[in-house]
Amino acid sequence: MKIAVLPGDGIGSEIVAEAVKVLNALVPQLILEEAPVGGAAYELHGHPLPPATLELAKQADAILFGAVGDWKYDTLARELRPEQAILGLRKHLELFANFRPAICYAELTAASSLKAEIVGGLDILIVRELNGDIYFGQPRGIRTSELPLFKGAREGFDTMHYSDPEVERIARVAFEAARKRSKKVCSVDKANVLETSQLWREVMIRVAKGYPDVELTHMYVDNAAMQLVKAPKAFDVVVTGNLFGDILSDEAAMLTGSIGMLPSASLDKNNKGLYEPSHGSAPDIAGKGIANPLATILSAAMMLRYSLGMPEQADTIEAAVQKVLSQGLRTADIYTAGSTKVSTKQMGDAVVAAL
Amino acid sequence: MKIAVLPGDGIGSEIVAEAVKVLNALVPQLILEEAPVGGAAYELHGHPLPPATLELAKQADAILFGAVGDWKYDTLARELRPEQAILGLRKHLELFANFRPAICYAELTAASSLKAEIVGGLDILIVRELNGDIYFGQPRGIRTSELPLFKGAREGFDTMHYSDPEVERIARVAFEAARKRSKKVCSVDKANVLETSQLWREVMIRVAKGYPDVELTHMYVDNAAMQLVKAPKAFDVVVTGNLFGDILSDEAAMLTGSIGMLPSASLDKNNKGLYEPSHGSAPDIAGKGIANPLATILSAAMMLRYSLGMPEQADTIEAAVQKVLSQGLRTADIYTAGSTKVSTKQMGDAVVAAL
Ligand SMILES: CC(C)[C@H](C(=O)O)[C@@H](O)C(=O)O
Ligand SMILES: CC(C)[C@H](C(=O)O)[C@@H](O)C(=O)O
Repeated sequence: MKIAVLPGDGIGSEIVAEAVKVLNALVPQLILEEAPVGGAAYELHGHPLPPATLELAKQADAILFGAVGDWKYDTLARELRPEQAILGLRKHLELFANFRPAICYAELTAASSLKAEIVGGLDILIVRELNGDIYFGQPRGIRTSELPLFKGAREGFDTMHYSDPEVERIARVAFEAARKRSKKVCSVDKANVLETSQLWREVMIRVAKGYPDVELTHMYVDNAAMQLVKAPKAFDVVVTGNLFGDILSDEAAMLTGSIGMLPSASLDKNNKGLYEPSHGSAPDIAGKGIANPLATILSAAMMLRYSLGMPEQADTIEAAVQKVLSQGLRTADIYTAGSTKVSTKQMGDAVVAAL
Repeated sequence: MKIAVLPGDGIGSEIVAEAVKVLNALVPQLILEEAPVGGAAYELHGHPLPPATLELAKQADAILFGAVGDWKYDTLARELRPEQAILGLRKHLELFANFRPAICYAELTAASSLKAEIVGGLDILIVRELNGDIYFGQPRGIRTSELPLFKGAREGFDTMHYSDPEVERIARVAFEAARKRSKKVCSVDKANVLETSQLWREVMIRVAKGYPDVELTHMYVDNAAMQLVKAPKAFDVVVTGNLFGDILSDEAAMLTGSIGMLPSASLDKNNKGLYEPSHGSAPDIAGKGIANPLATILSAAMMLRYSLGMPEQADTIEAAVQKVLSQGLRTADIYTAGSTKVSTKQMGDAVVAAL
């Protein structure tokens, strides 16, 4: 089985190197093939997602992704910016189902900005639609306005968009996931204002009929942003569109204090997937060897479980991560007094040793 | 001077009654005229914003608004639902500038789900654009798709939209507000994905040139949702569009633990405004006499300051609210052991007594 390894920018190469180390130690039969992506690819080939990288990603059985983005590319034209690589991969490979767990690790509860009783033991799953919405809707652009009120002025516009089948397939993914958890799905939308959300909600209700054992509730996105702060443990599976999912999954991840620990998976309909840490490329600490590789290592575990059919090996990695945490090893981002501060590489080595 | 008093639904009439009591006691010269709005107006006149209510709002010098919405209207057609009243008022009266302070009251820090050191002393101002964006952009609707991929399926769509002059006017409002505070504006957008945000950011940068004393920074909305949780005190003035503002202002309000205390103002270009509490209509506790009237009372104070040119009277109300808090009076939502639990009416009476 072949894995496309795309380290990307910032801390990407450092954290991916540790996950690769873990994979090599545990499942040496995997063929890992690396390619540049994001700003790194732009530097080399003039494009954030060069044809060869896309081709490798298409052929591979799964993709291990680091992170993309760096302030130094802020002035590039939109279509050349690092983010386009991840958007392009999601779209070209039809990775429509994004799983973003927000878990508060017992050892890290103190690192959260929330009170321990509010986040301790938190374990929610955000299922974000990743192929539609205002991310890809047409038409979009910047043009001269024809509106009577703004005639002659420039205007920017984008189209939010969801069709029945798009909502249906992400709904099924969420309901299936809920069946393996607490059988509760909260669908987040803005149906009191947006037509797209109205359709979203109707389809959710329709699909829910096929899952009578799962309880479906609805929440407006503004309220969801509040309830996540107030009582995050009241949620279990949250399903939402691409834009709201972008915002809420980051908010939820940050609540835990464990963002350096949180993996994510983006799957197509055959469970081929792209796996990446929930955090970003952190260019401010790149090259210092202090980034936390655990989210990437846990992303590799998710890859083994969801795309490669190797659940035991996934368990092994997760147990090893749990073990290094219990040993008190911490990278700088999750360091608290009394624990042992380690580098990116030391953390990766410790996980390998704990396998 | 004439004030339109629109209590609305749920706890609306209870909390507005207390604010009216305070206004009558302090500034008896104001003419307060009441009209139904939201679900209450739908029941009486078949429309959430009847012509007579809109007319009163137009003629008045300011509007004191309670809250609208109740689950029992969830099945009504969109255009008849209570929320349309507030959207209609914002649009018809061109109330484009929404001020949503997120303040953590010293007495209420313990009520926050965040740690005291993270939120204690928090005082940020979210300036939300209220007349544009995907809330009002055209075209929008639900139709049969013509897209090759989804041909024949239903699709929902909405248009996100901002023009140069719309962004310019809210930018000026934010920069002016920052001049009276710490001279820092953080503009929140999603310029790495949305064309509307790209235009938004360009205009922000251009307008900032006229305010060389104010520092402008930019943040993506997903990151802002995270940073609000991680380190809210790093913000001062946040300016953003209608949709992102809806989400982030609610998140920020909930961080404080003081949401029952937070007023808001929605102003037109002449500082005529609509004033309402940041919280909603809370139909679950309506009629029980336990809702917190302080956000509405503080909204009345904002009204005196911004629309009626009575800053001293505004100060008097705010000082009175501070006093009742110091006296340990608390409605149920902000109650903690050791303080005195009071009803909606008792709280209003206490503020009047403290004037
Ligand atoms: C980099 C950016 C385009 C991307 C997104 O908005 O989806 C990121 O924020 C994410 O959540 O993966
Ligand atoms: C009621 C609803 C339409 C409204 C909005 O989305 O603007 C509310 O959430 C608010 O923030 O005032």
